[in-house]
Amino acid sequence: MSLSLAKELNPLNTEPQAESRRLSTPNPKKNPPSKEHEMIVVMEQGASDAQIQHVAQLIRELGLTDHIIKGTERTVIAAIGDDRAKNKENLETVPGVEKVMPVLAPYKMASREVKKERSVVPLGGTLGASAGGKKVCLIAGPCSVESRPQLLNCAQAVKAAGATALRGGAFKPRTSPYAFQGMGEEGLKILAEARDLTGLAVVTEIMAVDQIDLVCKYADVLQVGARNMQNYNLLWAVGDTRKTVLLKRGLSATLEEFLLAAEYIMSKGNPNVILCERGIRTFETYCRNTLPLAIVPEVHRISHLPIVIDPSQGTGHAHLVPDMCKAAIAAGADGLIIEAHDDPEHALTDGAQSITPKTLKEMMVTLRKIATAVDREI
Amino acid sequence: MSLSLAKELNPLNTEPQAESRRLSTPNPKKNPPSKEHEMIVVMEQGASDAQIQHVAQLIRELGLTDHIIKGTERTVIAAIGDDRAKNKENLETVPGVEKVMPVLAPYKMASREVKKERSVVPLGGTLGASAGGKKVCLIAGPCSVESRPQLLNCAQAVKAAGATALRGGAFKPRTSPYAFQGMGEEGLKILAEARDLTGLAVVTEIMAVDQIDLVCKYADVLQVGARNMQNYNLLWAVGDTRKTVLLKRGLSATLEEFLLAAEYIMSKGNPNVILCERGIRTFETYCRNTLPLAIVPEVHRISHLPIVIDPSQGTGHAHLVPDMCKAAIAAGADGLIIEAHDDPEHALTDGAQSITPKTLKEMMVTLRKIATAVDREI
Amino acid sequence: MSLSLAKELNPLNTEPQAESRRLSTPNPKKNPPSKEHEMIVVMEQGASDAQIQHVAQLIRELGLTDHIIKGTERTVIAAIGDDRAKNKENLETVPGVEKVMPVLAPYKMASREVKKERSVVPLGGTLGASAGGKKVCLIAGPCSVESRPQLLNCAQAVKAAGATALRGGAFKPRTSPYAFQGMGEEGLKILAEARDLTGLAVVTEIMAVDQIDLVCKYADVLQVGARNMQNYNLLWAVGDTRKTVLLKRGLSATLEEFLLAAEYIMSKGNPNVILCERGIRTFETYCRNTLPLAIVPEVHRISHLPIVIDPSQGTGHAHLVPDMCKAAIAAGADGLIIEAHDDPEHALTDGAQSITPKTLKEMMVTLRKIATAVDREI
Amino acid sequence: MSLSLAKELNPLNTEPQAESRRLSTPNPKKNPPSKEHEMIVVMEQGASDAQIQHVAQLIRELGLTDHIIKGTERTVIAAIGDDRAKNKENLETVPGVEKVMPVLAPYKMASREVKKERSVVPLGGTLGASAGGKKVCLIAGPCSVESRPQLLNCAQAVKAAGATALRGGAFKPRTSPYAFQGMGEEGLKILAEARDLTGLAVVTEIMAVDQIDLVCKYADVLQVGARNMQNYNLLWAVGDTRKTVLLKRGLSATLEEFLLAAEYIMSKGNPNVILCERGIRTFETYCRNTLPLAIVPEVHRISHLPIVIDPSQGTGHAHLVPDMCKAAIAAGADGLIIEAHDDPEHALTDGAQSITPKTLKEMMVTLRKIATAVDREI
Repeated sequence: MSLSLAKELNPLNTEPQAESRRLSTPNPKKNPPSKEHEMIVVMEQGASDAQIQHVAQLIRELGLTDHIIKGTERTVIAAIGDDRAKNKENLETVPGVEKVMPVLAPYKMASREVKKERSVVPLGGTLGASAGGKKVCLIAGPCSVESRPQLLNCAQAVKAAGATALRGGAFKPRTSPYAFQGMGEEGLKILAEARDLTGLAVVTEIMAVDQIDLVCKYADVLQVGARNMQNYNLLWAVGDTRKTVLLKRGLSATLEEFLLAAEYIMSKGNPNVILCERGIRTFETYCRNTLPLAIVPEVHRISHLPIVIDPSQGTGHAHLVPDMCKAAIAAGADGLIIEAHDDPEHALTDGAQSITPKTLKEMMVTLRKIATAVDREI
Repeated sequence: MSLSLAKELNPLNTEPQAESRRLSTPNPKKNPPSKEHEMIVVMEQGASDAQIQHVAQLIRELGLTDHIIKGTERTVIAAIGDDRAKNKENLETVPGVEKVMPVLAPYKMASREVKKERSVVPLGGTLGASAGGKKVCLIAGPCSVESRPQLLNCAQAVKAAGATALRGGAFKPRTSPYAFQGMGEEGLKILAEARDLTGLAVVTEIMAVDQIDLVCKYADVLQVGARNMQNYNLLWAVGDTRKTVLLKRGLSATLEEFLLAAEYIMSKGNPNVILCERGIRTFETYCRNTLPLAIVPEVHRISHLPIVIDPSQGTGHAHLVPDMCKAAIAAGADGLIIEAHDDPEHALTDGAQSITPKTLKEMMVTLRKIATAVDREI
Repeated sequence: MSLSLAKELNPLNTEPQAESRRLSTPNPKKNPPSKEHEMIVVMEQGASDAQIQHVAQLIRELGLTDHIIKGTERTVIAAIGDDRAKNKENLETVPGVEKVMPVLAPYKMASREVKKERSVVPLGGTLGASAGGKKVCLIAGPCSVESRPQLLNCAQAVKAAGATALRGGAFKPRTSPYAFQGMGEEGLKILAEARDLTGLAVVTEIMAVDQIDLVCKYADVLQVGARNMQNYNLLWAVGDTRKTVLLKRGLSATLEEFLLAAEYIMSKGNPNVILCERGIRTFETYCRNTLPLAIVPEVHRISHLPIVIDPSQGTGHAHLVPDMCKAAIAAGADGLIIEAHDDPEHALTDGAQSITPKTLKEMMVTLRKIATAVDREI
Repeated sequence: MSLSLAKELNPLNTEPQAESRRLSTPNPKKNPPSKEHEMIVVMEQGASDAQIQHVAQLIRELGLTDHIIKGTERTVIAAIGDDRAKNKENLETVPGVEKVMPVLAPYKMASREVKKERSVVPLGGTLGASAGGKKVCLIAGPCSVESRPQLLNCAQAVKAAGATALRGGAFKPRTSPYAFQGMGEEGLKILAEARDLTGLAVVTEIMAVDQIDLVCKYADVLQVGARNMQNYNLLWAVGDTRKTVLLKRGLSATLEEFLLAAEYIMSKGNPNVILCERGIRTFETYCRNTLPLAIVPEVHRISHLPIVIDPSQGTGHAHLVPDMCKAAIAAGADGLIIEAHDDPEHALTDGAQSITPKTLKEMMVTLRKIATAVDREI
């Protein structure tokens, strides 16, 4: 999406708001009116006329038009039209109401209805990496930056295997406070050095608003991790930058919530969002997460944003990664982000799900054939 | 697996037990001893010596050998060796015990440890259909047999598209008692006629023990549906036949439970089991079920049985089916089972997830290329 | 629900159909017309008039009335009125359709709209046990019948603790084919002897249609296990008896599917259904299943059937059972079904989740106070 | 837990580190060594001696002691002793390894092993509110502060009903960027005024590190919402304050992850953590979230921290709230946090799950009786 389209869609937020990044207090008056809040109210069997009229009245208070449809057994009321960001779910507690069904999801800028053609989002680096075009992007690298030699070696190895972007964490969100938390700025410097050396775009995670200036100095793509998918202050803050954002899906986020998180970023004027599916939490035990690849064609149907797949987090086990890479490309994914480590036995983080650059290279032969089969390149 | 291997593995059940099919009372004395019930017992911090010795004693009562390992903060006890089908999880209630961790899953005949080479299971028909070899099998057809012309037309269309087996339900498990329940024997006869006409193998669902004789008369493959994956009397009964069984995974069954359901069938002497993943139930709403393709490489790692994918049930929406077919082949699936209907708008069941034979045919061009890329054929 | 109401609701199935129990082939012509299949069709943005008219035409083909509502951004079509059991979800594949939302669930006899007053379902025995009235029923006993002395001792102990019904499995559905499968008829005889001795109603699981005559000879309540909740032939067969049925919820069944399973039983003329929540499968690991107690007030809101809670299966760990019993009563449950065993360390099945009769007795003091607090008795 | 205990447990972080709140870069050298990282490595059947010795070597590299146990079919290796925060899961990729099972969870300060007696955490205000003692705390109020009269009225009404703390959001995390985001500081001032008026402790959500100083000025308890349960910078920052923290469980967080989030806060020297269960995300549709009350006795078993229940978020529907309040008290919860609103039909947020103060007051009669039954007060 061009900046001018962003401007048109979100006229209240056209200027990158550098100051708001430090002020987590939103200004409620600035929220643009939301549209498409149509809903269907199903009345209980035997709801009285007075109850039906009361609901119709409440719908009109919301700025919507009510359409009362009386069936043989019960009445449904369709509420159609613009609204003014009021809260319709409240209707559920009104006497005589059985349930309220929203007609449509409330995201807009991330939706395909607003922008029909697919977005091609640049990743940076000097190798022309981007997501959303004919070429599938390959982002690979270690879970964490552990040392300069480890990272530079790995960067060269993944480039040789065919990657155009390098992943690597300098700030690591860890479930335990006692686990390795990343090298911080020192790690960022090593990542930037690797880019200079190889031309790979640098993708690295950002965990807090106050890390943004620092990370923007070194990285090409800001990764928002699954745990932060609904950290709204962080979303707004990366929306205030013009860096590409790789937004990972929360492990129990619905697709609607996922696109609304993208909407948080885009509503600040940053159109460069890449969605990333990294597996959801289910009852399954043979894998750390369940990788739902059907999200790829569904995102392509309802949104113009590119979607890349993380089969490393998405399965949690190195032996499942290559086949899931193949499946992701076949399903139409716009890219892969893969954990690769020269010595998984001694990795400081996520060794269990890292493949070696050698495996990556071997796998690429097959990935290229599959990409060709589905009319893509890699 | 050959019959002789089945015999060797399960010496107590070598003869097809026609009579047991009608007698749902299992004979508890006939259950073979189960092995590999090793476990690790983790004691509470501060568990007393008497408590530790009591657990060790209980382990020995189970016919296992106890290994007591004292750490700096707590004691763990490994219980190793054969057992005699006693119930070890009981140890959890013993004073001083923190938790009990089983070392390994209790299936055996379905496991790769018992049979290293992959099983190739024949489907029937005259087109050489099988699952588990180099050739990926394509099973397609309507959800339900609705009429003779509908089925015969559809059979010819899916054969023309490249299918080697025909699916179609004569007995339909329906969530509502008021929904169309299938044509019964009349539907089976039409299926058999379609096989005679086309050479396609006939795959159809069996819902009850007393349908077995009837269905065996007409069908090549007995499908056990997801809702019946733990209907143990039905599993035993199809295990008593020598027909190939297509066993669908329950929508919240673990992989271990899935393989144990296969073990029920195989323990009766029928080695011809094809596993079928048809999606699991999660919180997701854009799809009716979540299709976890990582199960394909995992099944190939731990079992010798073939696994086919059902992207129709696995997503619930026709527009997601083609890409999930491609992904399944890329992930290494041994086959696809797809709902195809000439006129989905008027299908009596599952129209929302049926693709047309025309879509199937178009998709096959891509599927063939992907199969080649992963060193398979279709 | 009285038999006469059952007759009125289901005029086609008024006679207990002894023969159908052996014939698993449903007669499709006998399915009564289903009502309340209203739905809302949401059209895509930009759907053409021709597409809208085509959908309206399809709705009329289904015997429903179409109401077209044009909004500022898109059109929704409400389809209201009786239908003739045709399959409306098919509309989803029609060009121009965004999604189809059903207005209401298709169960009827289990619904509160059909019967406002709560059903009181008798359990049997000589102690006046029933579920759904002011008195909360307590069903307790071992997971499996293991021997005559074990069961008779346990029966006397749970009666002394306050139980009015005895649970105990003679046929055991086991995940592994190698596990103890139950004592069969010998176990049933011991259960009947326990009833003669104590007056407790006997609740026992039925796994297959061909066990019905046998189990009916000895038991008061037929338990349909979670794995069989959608074994429709079994549901129809217990619906043909007039025994009370304790129907357990499948571990990933929705509430709608649960009530439709009850509807299968009731549609055959057996109104004596008790629902049983036994926990659902989630990602949680500290418990074997997650016990969702909010289902109690929800069932009371939408159905007239009683609901009992199984905190043993519902948690999987004995140490969680007493507090969940208390919570269940406080939430308004109509009964509890609890696994109790004199010697959990040596139980043949489910020792980890069995409490001792001593714990049961101690807990009853508190349960009585909570029952009084919520205006019930136990 | 007393401050001196906190000091003893965490000698590296005894001083409130005001400056670190602004510096999101953790100092990796300061992480204290983690203990209890024992694990069991299960080798593949047929693993070679060299593979077994290689694993033993890697275990010794981690600073653990290896215990090799050879069974009839396979070898397991127990790794026992202190470790140095290295990453053992890596062993999973080592040749010959089947799987790695951690023996124990890595939290410590939140664990009952470290502190046997239950913690009583003060809430503030002048009514003596606290969580974890005999008295169950009742926190009630609107989802959002909407206006001065609304909040002051509501505060007085919930106090009259029996509450000792007031909830109300000034910063609201909203799924949609277009929804009402809260009144900010103006809302905080109204909350403080309500405390002055009523003596109720003020509980309010904090969404970002840079809101801490502001919120600490007005509020008594800092609420960390479910979406931020793994926002580690925020956890560290509230750990640097000495305010009581109400930590909500993420909607797909495991119990171990939940306690590790508490550990993040406690490891900074703030022992005043109250856990809050607010429902998990499952496949269920009749409720917005599934409320798993068995977590109450489990938390009491493994941790000394108090746990309160949020039945409003935990169900999402006002009609389910009262019965879940009763169940929570019966299960042993240390408190309730409830959304209450005078006019749910017109609430700006969460009207569907808010009860009225009148309902709250009526319910309290029953809650008091249940509390007495389980030897608590409210």
